[in-house]
Amino acid sequence: MDYTINRVIAETDFDAVDARTRAALAANGFGVLTEINVKATMKKKLDVEMLAYRILGACNPKMAHQAIGMEPRVGAMLPCNVILREVTGGVEVSAIDPVASMQAIGNPELTAVAGQVRDLLTKAVDAI
Amino acid sequence: MDYTINRVIAETDFDAVDARTRAALAANGFGVLTEINVKATMKKKLDVEMLAYRILGACNPKMAHQAIGMEPRVGAMLPCNVILREVTGGVEVSAIDPVASMQAIGNPELTAVAGQVRDLLTKAVDAI
Repeated sequence: MDYTINRVIAETDFDAVDARTRAALAANGFGVLTEINVKATMKKKLDVEMLAYRILGACNPKMAHQAIGMEPRVGAMLPCNVILREVTGGVEVSAIDPVASMQAIGNPELTAVAGQVRDLLTKAVDAI
Repeated sequence: MDYTINRVIAETDFDAVDARTRAALAANGFGVLTEINVKATMKKKLDVEMLAYRILGACNPKMAHQAIGMEPRVGAMLPCNVILREVTGGVEVSAIDPVASMQAIGNPELTAVAGQVRDLLTKAVDAI
């Protein structure tokens, strides 16, 4: 089972892909609430080198609020992460598939909302 | 299946539980890389009221680095969230069980690391 929605953007400017990703997320109702520069964190904490890797925490407030109403602890799986990774040929964007990650919760009502979020994230990835 | 490790702390001072949680996480090798004040975000974005709710993004750099080496897109499920919620009788702390959330990935090598992370998160929750 695929747990992410993936697309390689043929663009070597990592920050440009970051900006385009945020714009596509915003156009589909997601704000970016958190950001982790994984490459910089690993360099700082472990002194190891790696290719560029960033984790954006995307949230559609209306759907998140609905989900918390159905499943109070769902915040343990929020926000929906969108990762950007430097790969051969450009930057790969991978958005979490919330239907896959939330299958462990086993709440059918929540799964329906997660499906709507997946559709919006798919649109956002397509729009980058 | 439980997807979180839960404990209710009989303490009404939410920020005190936040501080104790961070200290317990740090003592078990986790830094807090992200923080979302869900209550404030929902008030600002949707103008709705809710009880205190915070999402801390906890990361053990060594284990995260190991996990990314095994499964490059695992960042879509990182960091490990620990949520704090105002409940009757105090504050509930719920840490994600990474074995549960990462079952959708289906990578046995990764599941072994996720099991070690779960053990450390359980220790941290016990130590609050």
